[in-house]
Amino acid sequence: MLGNFSYSNPTKLYFGENSLEFLNEELPKYGKRVQLIYGKSSIKKNGLYDKIVEILKKNGKEIFEDAGVMPNPTVQKLYEGCKIAKDNDVDLLLAVGGGSVCDYAKAVAASAHCKEDPWEKYYLRSEEIDNRILPVGCVLTMVGTGSEMNGGSVITNHEQKLKIGRVFGDNVFPKFSILNPVFTYTLPEYQMVAGIYDIMSHILEQYFSGEDDNTSDYLSEGLLRSLIHSSRIALKNPTDYEARSNIMWIATWALNTLVAKGKTTDWMVHMLGHAVGSYTDATHGMTLAAVSMAYYKKILPYGLQKFKRYAVNVWDVCPEGKSDEAIALEGLAVMEAWMREMKLVMNLSDLGVTEEMLEGLANSTFVKTGGYKILTHEEIVAVFKDSL
Amino acid sequence: MLGNFSYSNPTKLYFGENSLEFLNEELPKYGKRVQLIYGKSSIKKNGLYDKIVEILKKNGKEIFEDAGVMPNPTVQKLYEGCKIAKDNDVDLLLAVGGGSVCDYAKAVAASAHCKEDPWEKYYLRSEEIDNRILPVGCVLTMVGTGSEMNGGSVITNHEQKLKIGRVFGDNVFPKFSILNPVFTYTLPEYQMVAGIYDIMSHILEQYFSGEDDNTSDYLSEGLLRSLIHSSRIALKNPTDYEARSNIMWIATWALNTLVAKGKTTDWMVHMLGHAVGSYTDATHGMTLAAVSMAYYKKILPYGLQKFKRYAVNVWDVCPEGKSDEAIALEGLAVMEAWMREMKLVMNLSDLGVTEEMLEGLANSTFVKTGGYKILTHEEIVAVFKDSL
Repeated sequence: MLGNFSYSNPTKLYFGENSLEFLNEELPKYGKRVQLIYGKSSIKKNGLYDKIVEILKKNGKEIFEDAGVMPNPTVQKLYEGCKIAKDNDVDLLLAVGGGSVCDYAKAVAASAHCKEDPWEKYYLRSEEIDNRILPVGCVLTMVGTGSEMNGGSVITNHEQKLKIGRVFGDNVFPKFSILNPVFTYTLPEYQMVAGIYDIMSHILEQYFSGEDDNTSDYLSEGLLRSLIHSSRIALKNPTDYEARSNIMWIATWALNTLVAKGKTTDWMVHMLGHAVGSYTDATHGMTLAAVSMAYYKKILPYGLQKFKRYAVNVWDVCPEGKSDEAIALEGLAVMEAWMREMKLVMNLSDLGVTEEMLEGLANSTFVKTGGYKILTHEEIVAVFKDSL
Repeated sequence: MLGNFSYSNPTKLYFGENSLEFLNEELPKYGKRVQLIYGKSSIKKNGLYDKIVEILKKNGKEIFEDAGVMPNPTVQKLYEGCKIAKDNDVDLLLAVGGGSVCDYAKAVAASAHCKEDPWEKYYLRSEEIDNRILPVGCVLTMVGTGSEMNGGSVITNHEQKLKIGRVFGDNVFPKFSILNPVFTYTLPEYQMVAGIYDIMSHILEQYFSGEDDNTSDYLSEGLLRSLIHSSRIALKNPTDYEARSNIMWIATWALNTLVAKGKTTDWMVHMLGHAVGSYTDATHGMTLAAVSMAYYKKILPYGLQKFKRYAVNVWDVCPEGKSDEAIALEGLAVMEAWMREMKLVMNLSDLGVTEEMLEGLANSTFVKTGGYKILTHEEIVAVFKDSL
């Protein structure tokens, strides 16, 4: 593996069926004033809200409610959250929910004490944080984004038609995250499989870069094989603890910087998906699924050896007597069959995208270096078109 | 994956050809008085000692020398190191060397301010640390033990014929470790391959436990495949940067608690190897290699499905038309061929063990639960005998 890098991850994870108990260990480390961040009413329906409020009260905390975080958190909601945090001088942001809720909590952590417009400073201009940062804790109820152990924070500005994923440094990483696979059981199937594909895409977008011999690629193959195996079990039986626990753990390790070490990445599927999200507000994982096949077929010739390795090592394609290209394409075909088996959205039109949007989508797509091929504007339009 | 667990790892890693530079970032975080810990004269010969002393002086540090840490650090040496640390009230222990030097530094970190005999309190009785702990930093020159990112610390008491591996909590983990693959180039081949087998054994001893569906096993398979691939390149060309860097990275992740999550482990190959080490002072990795085949053949019937999976997923054994046992045994045969290719020591007699020692060796072997089979005293004697 090439390059110089550093690795450290300050997030403490508590994993398992009894992991919520550990909130009692973490809470005493912080001040009295807790901003309780969550989404819609689902945690009230399933009883988790009551359990957490009870633990907070038992630990003598004062609760400041910050409900209604939407699946793609908006910049307006961010301003609201910052106001709650600042007006009440909160000591801890406790996020209860999925990746959006965690992402949003990190945005508030960085922005609450920012003297300028945080959207402009931390998202549009991606500047270093030079103000006080609030600590974040997470109780995860939905898996996919890996937000529970990284600095990622995606915020959407519908007016500007921009969905920007900022990656903050480890001073914004959650201080702790509680991962109880059972909390994910009640998630609707659509959300579960979208999360599974988000994980898949995180791993693949790091895997499909570079040509050096890199241990990260071997770790990625292990994660992918475990994910594929467990996804099939979870689809049939959503309350299979082993499958859901493996998926939860894979999600964390797919995007907590480990498998990125020594890799360059352009995160192109996410860039395409974010453009779709900013136009349609569609479920994140489904925006990735809908563009993936067209995108991977487009870049396959530029990363042929890696696509071949992917087919053999991840999808057990038998390479004998076949050309490299045939092996690589067979790998994508088997992957596509798995995607259909998972009931993922395979076409942008199913997410509300129309032909008229294509130019605009391409204009909203950030293009970075680091992958096998830098797509031109025309090629991006073509990928969207092929995905319709 | 089953069970409840927590994960956090406070060690910051700096990896790559230029990673020594980052010592300048870390040193200002600690006080002026640095105990410089190293082994024999090799770091003086290859110039690393001079480079580090220069960086320490540039950062205004006062150096307290603690040289001569031996490959299997003894309890007498530990007492010496504690005296240096206490008499000089040092602020930081800087370990420059391989696993033994790092292990020893952690032992001094825990023990320097201990009011009782630390061997008895922290090794024989394995008590929690209730005294001040000194911070440790590592500059790694030899890979295998993973000591650079964990709480492991093996100390040998030759008088008592005991070699005990204590695993301290994350308050003893190195604060930072500098991993430059180039520093490992000058290591003699015997030490390099012994380190490679130590890594292999760390992964396998975690892998060969449990029957649940666990993502850790998939990660372990990825690490093993990468290790086998890179070991062959490194044996032919010890200055192949990619191979040496992969091996260095795998060593860290093999034993920094990640692939242990959800697993039970008995560390039996290490327990057998430690007994051999306490009698012969042989190189750690070679003690593991010499007992492995006899041990794995002994436990194979009790973990047959896992040995079968190992053969197929790690060693590419074709399973078609073969019984489970045949597949599993073929896996071990291919592994043994690789071990011979690596020029590992395959017999205890080559390490100076004689028939007369066998009973004593078995008496010195700690037996824990957590693996596929708890060996009886007679079975342990038999494993040693089969390994002669």
